[in-house]
Amino acid sequence: MLSPASDAPGDARFFARSGPFGLERLAECISASLPTSNRANGVAASFTGVAPLQAAGPDQVSFLDNRRYLKQLALTRAGVVIVSPAFADQVPATSTALVTPDPYLAWALVASLFHPRLSVSGSIHPSAVVEPGALIDPSAEIGAFAFVGRDAVVGAGCSIGSHASIGAGVIIGSDCRIGTHASVSHSILGDRVTLFPGARIGQEGFGFAVGKAGFVTVPQLGRVLIEDDVEIGANAAIDRGSAQDTVIGAGSRLDNLVQIGHNVRLGRCCIVVSQAGISGSTELEDYVTIAAQAGLIGHIRIGRKARVGAQCGVMSDVEPGADVIGSPAMPFREFFRNVAALRRLARRPAASGTAASTAGENGAG
Amino acid sequence: MLSPASDAPGDARFFARSGPFGLERLAECISASLPTSNRANGVAASFTGVAPLQAAGPDQVSFLDNRRYLKQLALTRAGVVIVSPAFADQVPATSTALVTPDPYLAWALVASLFHPRLSVSGSIHPSAVVEPGALIDPSAEIGAFAFVGRDAVVGAGCSIGSHASIGAGVIIGSDCRIGTHASVSHSILGDRVTLFPGARIGQEGFGFAVGKAGFVTVPQLGRVLIEDDVEIGANAAIDRGSAQDTVIGAGSRLDNLVQIGHNVRLGRCCIVVSQAGISGSTELEDYVTIAAQAGLIGHIRIGRKARVGAQCGVMSDVEPGADVIGSPAMPFREFFRNVAALRRLARRPAASGTAASTAGENGAG
Amino acid sequence: MLSPASDAPGDARFFARSGPFGLERLAECISASLPTSNRANGVAASFTGVAPLQAAGPDQVSFLDNRRYLKQLALTRAGVVIVSPAFADQVPATSTALVTPDPYLAWALVASLFHPRLSVSGSIHPSAVVEPGALIDPSAEIGAFAFVGRDAVVGAGCSIGSHASIGAGVIIGSDCRIGTHASVSHSILGDRVTLFPGARIGQEGFGFAVGKAGFVTVPQLGRVLIEDDVEIGANAAIDRGSAQDTVIGAGSRLDNLVQIGHNVRLGRCCIVVSQAGISGSTELEDYVTIAAQAGLIGHIRIGRKARVGAQCGVMSDVEPGADVIGSPAMPFREFFRNVAALRRLARRPAASGTAASTAGENGAG
Repeated sequence: MLSPASDAPGDARFFARSGPFGLERLAECISASLPTSNRANGVAASFTGVAPLQAAGPDQVSFLDNRRYLKQLALTRAGVVIVSPAFADQVPATSTALVTPDPYLAWALVASLFHPRLSVSGSIHPSAVVEPGALIDPSAEIGAFAFVGRDAVVGAGCSIGSHASIGAGVIIGSDCRIGTHASVSHSILGDRVTLFPGARIGQEGFGFAVGKAGFVTVPQLGRVLIEDDVEIGANAAIDRGSAQDTVIGAGSRLDNLVQIGHNVRLGRCCIVVSQAGISGSTELEDYVTIAAQAGLIGHIRIGRKARVGAQCGVMSDVEPGADVIGSPAMPFREFFRNVAALRRLARRPAASGTAASTAGENGAG
Repeated sequence: MLSPASDAPGDARFFARSGPFGLERLAECISASLPTSNRANGVAASFTGVAPLQAAGPDQVSFLDNRRYLKQLALTRAGVVIVSPAFADQVPATSTALVTPDPYLAWALVASLFHPRLSVSGSIHPSAVVEPGALIDPSAEIGAFAFVGRDAVVGAGCSIGSHASIGAGVIIGSDCRIGTHASVSHSILGDRVTLFPGARIGQEGFGFAVGKAGFVTVPQLGRVLIEDDVEIGANAAIDRGSAQDTVIGAGSRLDNLVQIGHNVRLGRCCIVVSQAGISGSTELEDYVTIAAQAGLIGHIRIGRKARVGAQCGVMSDVEPGADVIGSPAMPFREFFRNVAALRRLARRPAASGTAASTAGENGAG
Repeated sequence: MLSPASDAPGDARFFARSGPFGLERLAECISASLPTSNRANGVAASFTGVAPLQAAGPDQVSFLDNRRYLKQLALTRAGVVIVSPAFADQVPATSTALVTPDPYLAWALVASLFHPRLSVSGSIHPSAVVEPGALIDPSAEIGAFAFVGRDAVVGAGCSIGSHASIGAGVIIGSDCRIGTHASVSHSILGDRVTLFPGARIGQEGFGFAVGKAGFVTVPQLGRVLIEDDVEIGANAAIDRGSAQDTVIGAGSRLDNLVQIGHNVRLGRCCIVVSQAGISGSTELEDYVTIAAQAGLIGHIRIGRKARVGAQCGVMSDVEPGADVIGSPAMPFREFFRNVAALRRLARRPAASGTAASTAGENGAG
């Protein structure tokens, strides 16, 4: 059905392209040494782009990061492969290996070299609405149907996507990218913050008291503070604080459809994967990872570098460095020991037929 | 509080209406034979619409698909009831039974007969923005505040909802319906694709490497390919690929708030129910069903016709045809056997009082 | 990085401010009696705002609702603290205690006194599109890029946010607040309904039959009825009914990213916390609470005042007043008994080494 022009990454319909680049330039980009002997005869003198192992040709660069793909490495036709020292000797003779301790990071750098991010034009689309008192840096780009409320501030080099809404008084630092349809209110953003399409930042938290005639909304009088270098995924929701602020610490990455309740505080470089949710007033120290679909109850504290597994249900504090999983949360080892124990128990063909357990059942009756 | 004009389905405020239709026309529509003897005396000569069993009157058509509603069948006043052969004899004497092996499919056809989909007008709303180089088929309808980026292509018979954003270079086939506030970038869509309101298609995937000063974004250089006849629910998110494409196979149906990570590939006619999430690079073969709130780890493969239960947590490959549930995922039978075994175990009033288990506890202490 | 003007709640960039108010006015506002002896010497004669215990100064009002924060109470410098009778004697001598049986409700009232909600101006933003036949009360406010379809009705005192889409024929009662980017179609809303940004109301439900050439969409001919005083969170999705209506009962509160399937009916004052999902045709009686990330299968009934715990998977009816948790759902007590029993079982160092269980294992082999 589909006959796309090209299967290669970096389709020119969508991505800018730079290059070609020679091997020296690539090695320099990732701080790798050039191979002492160029094993690969007939390798191109310059390279035009990047591609995955199975698709790359002699003029393309690929990488191996996951041993799951060693089979593809053996078969690759890539001109250059970025690998860690452990797999360097498995790069086929037709490829040049660029060896680095962190191939995934190196891949990020090389891919950015071939496909630089689109630059931001200092322009306001004629269809945009900018309310009186708003301050927009001349180098910022404001998209079609974007709305910037009164007294809002948009910093240098920002890109505000089509249909984005920047509420009254919101402050956005420099070099931020606000995706299409994102909404921001009652918030202060640092520099280099990225909001993906449809992210909802700063709306009222879920707070109400029980009155005689129904629920009574508790005013949500805090803000959302988003520190530098934070990214927030598509259709994620971050509520503003009630009496304190909701804070997302510098460098943190939140994935799509994540929910952050009011007064939550994330430390530096936290990771919250898609569809996870953090209830009100819970705090994450630095470098915490919350895997997909995990849920954290409110008013708890997750220690530095702790890792919360996928679908985990966390109902109490987690120690720094701990790995927890399960619902309710428990240490990884305990969880898998439980799983194994239950499987053994259930497999007994006549579990209630043994003396001990029969006694138990009788007692229960 | 509410005094809606009408409780019947097909409220004229919102839906087009056709008919009335006679019994022959209905039978023909669903390829059913006419009843040999018209059991129902006094049944209307023609029918004006559809309604559920408990609400339908003598000039309306209803259906039974779920044996849960047999009681309502016995009491229905519907003029016509569409049923499977198994329940035909339970249709009351006041109704005419139209018998078909698949009453739900037949209901879809009859309901569409009475309430045809609104036709698409070839028009561009004066408030829409269409950037230079975009190619819009004259038969397509572009809604208020819709944005179509440069060099994008919108095919024949498409309807682009209000506030939708079609990014630069995006290709949309014919007869697609793009809901209000949907955003599409870096994507190629086939024919008859439906995106519900707020769906996010083609944004960057969640990919970053760990650098010295924090996380470093890995360029996401793939696309999203959506094949023919796919539907994607409200506020769902589908990230574009990193070095390959993210692919949604022909005929697949994704529900609201679903998350699809980068490089994921769905085969033909897969079903992903609301709030389920599929992590990066995982592949679904054809006819796979993922129930609500299930989560799949990345880099795994789900075999043809496998079914993953609600809230299931899948951490490894699933065989074709398998039914799994639980977190971690296991066969349905094993899951419910585990549940039963654990319940029995926990109900023992003094589990540690039996000889065998006391020994175990002592050993643990 | 961030140097916000003020850490106090009610940042003047974002919130209106009223006052100062004397102690009498505060006591009257929450129907508390004035303290018989003013214990606190040197307390301000009037108060300028609210703040949490740890941040409040002598001219501010705070409250204690959760015994988790008793330590902050002991240290607070707040001029006034709202407390329940049980904690009144723990308010420090430097503060005046206002005693009430429900401090959280009282806090809501006092915070609203200091920070009244912004009033709605009767105006239509020049960038908005209002289609012919739409009826907008002169007291309503229509934001930038809002779209109001033909024959839609917007009642008195409503505020329609920027980029909101009100579909053709939709009826919105009085004093409703429709957030930015919200979309409403095929729906009738009562009075004082609040939709948060990006909420999706009234799109087609997830309904299709299996035809010979793939899935066949079943027309979704019902509506969404939202009764008075309902609030629906950011990026939540409520599908319209198929042949009946989807109904959200008066006073109910739905949090962000919640999913409500077609034909679902919620009674009065139900609570559905973030990322929970309710499948098609399920009914909640009055005062039901569904905690975060819980999932309910379709076609079941949840009894009055039942509470469904976080991440719970409900596969069958729940009795009125019941508390359930776990996946599959079970009574709270049973769930935690199971958790404890499994932990004991798994901790036995040689579970299969005891006489009884060895017999079981042998039998299984």
